[in-house]
Amino acid sequence: MEQQGFFITLEGGDGSGKTTVLGRVAAYLQNRSIPYVITREPGGIEIAEKIRSIILDPAHTAMDARTEALLYAASRSQHLAEVVEPALERGMTVLCDRFVDSSLVYQGYARGLGMEEVWSINQFAIGNRMPDLTFYLDIDPEVGLARIAANQNREVNRLDMESLAFHRKVREGYRMVVDANPQRMVVLDAARPLHIVEQELIRTLEERVLKGF
Amino acid sequence: MEQQGFFITLEGGDGSGKTTVLGRVAAYLQNRSIPYVITREPGGIEIAEKIRSIILDPAHTAMDARTEALLYAASRSQHLAEVVEPALERGMTVLCDRFVDSSLVYQGYARGLGMEEVWSINQFAIGNRMPDLTFYLDIDPEVGLARIAANQNREVNRLDMESLAFHRKVREGYRMVVDANPQRMVVLDAARPLHIVEQELIRTLEERVLKGF
Repeated sequence: MEQQGFFITLEGGDGSGKTTVLGRVAAYLQNRSIPYVITREPGGIEIAEKIRSIILDPAHTAMDARTEALLYAASRSQHLAEVVEPALERGMTVLCDRFVDSSLVYQGYARGLGMEEVWSINQFAIGNRMPDLTFYLDIDPEVGLARIAANQNREVNRLDMESLAFHRKVREGYRMVVDANPQRMVVLDAARPLHIVEQELIRTLEERVLKGF
Repeated sequence: MEQQGFFITLEGGDGSGKTTVLGRVAAYLQNRSIPYVITREPGGIEIAEKIRSIILDPAHTAMDARTEALLYAASRSQHLAEVVEPALERGMTVLCDRFVDSSLVYQGYARGLGMEEVWSINQFAIGNRMPDLTFYLDIDPEVGLARIAANQNREVNRLDMESLAFHRKVREGYRMVVDANPQRMVVLDAARPLHIVEQELIRTLEERVLKGF
């Protein structure tokens, strides 16, 4: 039997540059001929896409916070079953843009549902599948939100419209998750130019994951 | 402050006559001028309806069992927040066609996800809100499914197409839930004519809930 692939996730507040950095990591893996999948929930999975469209519909202002958290967990479960698990089983490296930590931080901490409570429904959603390594792109929310505002190509959804105070709570929440998971999580200072962030991320990847390749 | 209303749920396998019996109970409460709401998830709540349409779409044969359980919990959470809680707070009697026990039995037991695991996500969805009283309409699955087959007006969805073996597990699961909750749950033999079931249900309602009216 083939060895299972590595499961790597990227986390960070809005405007931290996750998606840009991830694209550059893809190019790096491609150059090194390392088989990989880059994905994010809902990841083109029909059922997960339908779930996500309910969450992000700006008309749904009456959505209960618990409903939202359960929908994120449901989308995660389906994406995991259809995309992540099959790729890991084929021995591929999987890079996922946001995973369970986002729910702990956004719903559990910033919205006040409780990290433990949100962890319990996510534990149901993911079973024993936790990331082998998580990069957290840390940035001051004011800087991150200014980046989003400057980028005209990015669609603004219901979540972007949250207040700055909310995004500050998100950063606080991420720091708590990092403190609780020092082995799994690597903090990258995302206020620096993104090519520097990318280099640091790839260096860590080489040290911690890709030694065998 | 007004006293909170009573929260009453109906449970039972497919074809047990729940919906018919519930309609008759509504007429009874109407006659006695008792303020009530009769509902079922998703109950016309826009967000919950959209969630349910994902679950029941016959095209979604690839739906992960955990995703399904999380979607039921999400629909429940929204229906509770928008329908059940506001009615109970106004002192109304709420009768709900299926609630948390259905998830424990269908997803937790019959689909094998584990009753405790499914309970954990439902506890997140409902907080401290449990029914004050639950009627379980008990029927042999063969009798129940024959009733459905005879009723041309009822739309058959993905769940009705499950095998008889599945429905037998559902009945086993309900019996376990009843054994674990003898105070809350009242078993009604639903193989009898429905007007008899209805009379017994109303008699129990009068004894246990409506004494004060």
